[in-house]
Order: sequence, then structure tokens, then C-alpha cells
Amino acid sequence: MKALMLSAIVATSVMGASLIDEAKTAGLKPIPANKKALEKLTSNPKNPTTAAKVELGKMLYFEPRLSKSGLISCNTCHNLGLGGSDGMSAAIGHKWKANPHHLSSPTVYNAVFYSQQFWDGRSPHLEDQAQGPMQAAPEMAAPKELVTDVVTSIPTYVTMFQKAYGKNVNITFEKIADTIAVFERTLVTPSRYDDFLNGNKKALTAAEQKGLKTFIDKGCATCHNDIALGGTMQAFNITGEYKYMKVGDFKGDANGLVRVPTLRNVTETAPYYHNGQVATLSEAIKEMGRIQLGVELNDQETNEIETFLKALEGKKPAIAYPMLPASTAKTPKVDVVND
Amino acid sequence: MKALMLSAIVATSVMGASLIDEAKTAGLKPIPANKKALEKLTSNPKNPTTAAKVELGKMLYFEPRLSKSGLISCNTCHNLGLGGSDGMSAAIGHKWKANPHHLSSPTVYNAVFYSQQFWDGRSPHLEDQAQGPMQAAPEMAAPKELVTDVVTSIPTYVTMFQKAYGKNVNITFEKIADTIAVFERTLVTPSRYDDFLNGNKKALTAAEQKGLKTFIDKGCATCHNDIALGGTMQAFNITGEYKYMKVGDFKGDANGLVRVPTLRNVTETAPYYHNGQVATLSEAIKEMGRIQLGVELNDQETNEIETFLKALEGKKPAIAYPMLPASTAKTPKVDVVND
Repeated sequence: MKALMLSAIVATSVMGASLIDEAKTAGLKPIPANKKALEKLTSNPKNPTTAAKVELGKMLYFEPRLSKSGLISCNTCHNLGLGGSDGMSAAIGHKWKANPHHLSSPTVYNAVFYSQQFWDGRSPHLEDQAQGPMQAAPEMAAPKELVTDVVTSIPTYVTMFQKAYGKNVNITFEKIADTIAVFERTLVTPSRYDDFLNGNKKALTAAEQKGLKTFIDKGCATCHNDIALGGTMQAFNITGEYKYMKVGDFKGDANGLVRVPTLRNVTETAPYYHNGQVATLSEAIKEMGRIQLGVELNDQETNEIETFLKALEGKKPAIAYPMLPASTAKTPKVDVVND
Repeated sequence: MKALMLSAIVATSVMGASLIDEAKTAGLKPIPANKKALEKLTSNPKNPTTAAKVELGKMLYFEPRLSKSGLISCNTCHNLGLGGSDGMSAAIGHKWKANPHHLSSPTVYNAVFYSQQFWDGRSPHLEDQAQGPMQAAPEMAAPKELVTDVVTSIPTYVTMFQKAYGKNVNITFEKIADTIAVFERTLVTPSRYDDFLNGNKKALTAAEQKGLKTFIDKGCATCHNDIALGGTMQAFNITGEYKYMKVGDFKGDANGLVRVPTLRNVTETAPYYHNGQVATLSEAIKEMGRIQLGVELNDQETNEIETFLKALEGKKPAIAYPMLPASTAKTPKVDVVND
């Protein structure tokens, strides 16, 4: 019995060692275990991460007064308590409008590792991305001036911007978005999978390692690779037609490409696909095999992959819920009832 | 100069001592400084506060899946980062509906000290109150069964209920509301005003003490008394007609009574009055004098009272933002786009 167990452990470890190489060859990369390396990777050289910016950015991320109604914050659709998303099939914004292309809210966790932002990849980084939803009519619907007027009308925010950027800071809409992005750059969720890729061969169970191997062997890592296991633009409907596309739904960018979503914390971000029409992870896996890889994944293979994906559940940074400073006489008034 | 300053300090202290007595005679009471005494005062004897219940109650308080849409939580309208309210003149709920009587969301902070809950005082305590908004059509709009189905479909919640109430707990709608109420009972914000009433005569500045004296002398404490400086049912429009009443607005209960709002953290909960039609605290003070006390408060008196009210800003409990457990295959699906 002892010998049997020992040989099982040895087998797993041997598999572990070669599997790490296989994963790396397939383009999979871990979140760095080294804190300095991670900071270097996630910080924006043009606007380096500091504690003062992160704290201010967190407040702005939770700040509903950055929306036209005063009701919707970044956290409404990218809820940090719900895997960084909202559980909706399409994002719901200002006046309860659904996203016109029936696009769901992508998770904000690990979005720093994406090469492109938004489902159509039109934005190169989080600083640019953060400007979108604040202004978009079916999201927060706020003109740039409203956002800056709100922030500059509240002395606590002005002081915090001065602490973060210096006494003579110009609090523009872009600077506000930049600061939200600095906070978002900290929303990274290392998991046992990263421990594994970083060399701890026992960090994943034998079943999870088998799942990772199936994931690689079937070709999933062709698109779901790098640190995010996603984040690049890829063709959609390569070997089959997505079952749940409806009239008016987003069909990809001008070239038919769709930004690949991260698989980190994927167990927390149902429903799946850009239009949120797939309820379960197992169906999402099978449909991906069919339309992207031209393989009919059987139940066992699907289960194996799902077991691996569960191991991508990461440790979320602790968030002290921010107490936001009160409005002043100068803060623009909202009239959500009549407006 | 030194002698002058000293005499000013002595005068403040003497004033302090007698003012504490005056305040107590006027029915004003501090939040107990003693932790045990506070716990005894805020805990529900039928459902005593425990750490396990508070943690679960906090998660449920932030849980949007307790609403029909999956988008609205208790914290949407009673935002703990915005003084426990939402800054709206009327609460906005399911499908962006405004409260039909144009009622604003009262703060949840210190609501445990109220004798009655809701603007019409129809509810005796937080356990009962918490059942209302979850079900109300213009708020969270969730049938009782939906709420229990969501909670019981998520194993983490079931386990937490078992830890909080014992293995055989029956997770009913009422039990869920009770648990939210246990969390709300901890949302107490002691301030320098409490230090003062608890005997520290220097806890309030001379100007704040003068403001407190004016507050008492003008009769504000007739209704704004006890620990909450509010929380009982009182007649409205006693000596004048409220300027900003519109057709359809709430006019009081069957007897014309309105639940007096707390003045704690009142600097954070504009706009004022049950229909949220008064933007500034100074106007709110003057209008109250006119319609409730029959006095025209001049600018100096108004300023004095406002200076005192600012000292009611309390220390909020630290809230670690809860990471909510993922939905399962059994969790009721929402279809907010088509529903």
C-alpha cells in the first residue's frame, strides 16, 4: 500500500515536471510569485502604481456619483464580490438599458494582463478602457465635464489627487480614468495553478494536472494562453457556428475577431460567452471545442477540463469598503426621477 | 492673553458640564462608550448577535442576487460608503422605478436605535424592516421563494447558516431577513458628541457646544432626541406647511405622523426630508424651525445648529468587502434583459 501510494506520488511529480514544460511550450504563463516582479509587470511606467493612487482609484471605482444618475459605479457591473462581473447575460446601465449588442460585462480581475480591452479589443489598456463605460449612454452615461465637476467639487478628492500626483495636478477626466486604472492593475488573483507553473509540482492534484494536459492537448491554449489564459483577439466560429447568436448580438470586430476572455475565476463569472447565453461551464467547454477547435469533446474530456478550470479560482485582494466623502454645495445635483 | 485663553477654557468646561445635564434633560442620550453595554443595547434578545451571523448578514446585505433582477442589493440604496443612503431624492429600484410616494432611502447607520422603521413607522424593528425592500415591487421586487431559492442553492450560504444557527436551521425568508438585521445592528457610528455626553467636556469645541445649546433651546430635541436624535413618530407641518410637497408625495401615516430621521451623519445624507427636496443642511434647519417649531431661525442660529450637527459625523465600522460565493446550477436564472 505504502509502495503504491509512493509510486502514485512519484508518477504525479514526474507528470508535474514535464507538464510544466508542456504548459510553457503551449504559451501558458504564471502570475509571478515574486512581489517585485509582479509589481513591475502590472504597473504602468507612464503612471507608476503608488499606495496613494490605489486608494484614490479604489474610491473612484466604487463611486456612483461618476455616473449621470449618481447610482452606477464601476463596481455595479464589475462587482468585486461577484468575480469582478455581474452575473447578467448583458450589462444593464443607465435607466436600466441593456447593452445594445447584448454584451456581458467582462471580469475586471486580471484584466491588466490583457493585450486588448473590450470585447472588440478597441482599447489598448485599462487607462483607456476606463474612459468608456463612464461616458457610454447605456452604461454610466456621464459627460466628461460631469465626472470632473463631481470630483473637483469634493475637497477630499482634490486633496487625494494632490497627494497622489503633486500639488499642481490637473484633475481631468483622463486623470480620473488613469487613477481608476491604477487600482484595477492591482486586481490580480494568483491561484494554485500559478504555484504549479512556478514550480510547485504538488500544487495541483493529479486530476487537475490531467485536466491541464487535456486542455493543452485539445488545443484550448491556442487562444487561452499567456498569463490571463486569454486577452488577445481571435477569430470566432472557426469550425462551427455558435449556437446562441441572436439578431443584433455582437459578431466580432471588423475582421470578425473577438477578445478572448480570461479563464481565471471562470467558475464565478457565469453566464458565459460575450452574449452570456451559456449557463454552465461544461456546455461552454463543449461549445468552444465544437466551434473553435472542430472537436466533439466527450463528457470525460469535458469534466477533465472543467476540473482544471476550477483550479484557476484565485485569491482576491482584500478590499476595505471605501467610505466616500460627502457631496458639497458645488457638487452637480442629480434628478434621477425626472431626468 | 494666556489668562484670557485660560478663562475661555474654564468657561467652556463649566458650560460643558451644565450643558451635558441640559442635553440629558432634553432627552438626548449618547451611544454607550462601554462595548458590552453597546452590545446589550443593540443585540436582539430573540436572535443574539454573533460573529458568524454578522459575517453572513454582511454578505447578504451586499448580495444583489436577493433581488429579482440580480442587480440590486440592500447596499444599492443604503450604501455604506455614502452615509448609509444613496444621495437620491427618491429611491430608485427594480427597472429604474422611483419610489411611488417619492420617498428617499433613510440611512441604515444607527437605524438600530429607532423605535419605528420606515418613514411611516409601520415596522417595529430591523428584522421586520429587512423583509420589505426585498419584496417591494419598486425596490428589489423578489418574491420570498426566489430569495430562499437563491440562498439555499449556494452551498457556502447553507454552511454559513448552519454555523450561525445550528445544523438543523430552516433557511426561510424570515431567517434571511433576521440575519441581515443582525449585521445592520452593528452599524453604529459613535462620534465626538457621544464622547461629550459620556463626560468628556472637551470633546466638542466651544462653537459646537453653543450649537448644541441652540439646538436644545430652540426645541429641536423635542423630536430629535434619544440616541438616534430621531426615530420616533411625530406630527409634521405643525406650525407651517412644508414648502416642497408635491402631488403624490408621502404625507405621513394615517394620523399624519412621520418617522423622525436620525441627525447622526446628516452631513453625508443630503438631499433632505422624506421626499429629498431640500439640498442644503442650512435650508433644512430653517424649514424645520418654520414648520415644526414656529420659529424663524436667523442665519447665526442656523449656523450654530449646523456646526453642532457636523459634530454628529461618526466613526463608521470597517467593512471588509465580502467576496460572494458563486451561483450553482440550482440557482434561479435571471433574465433581466427580457423580463
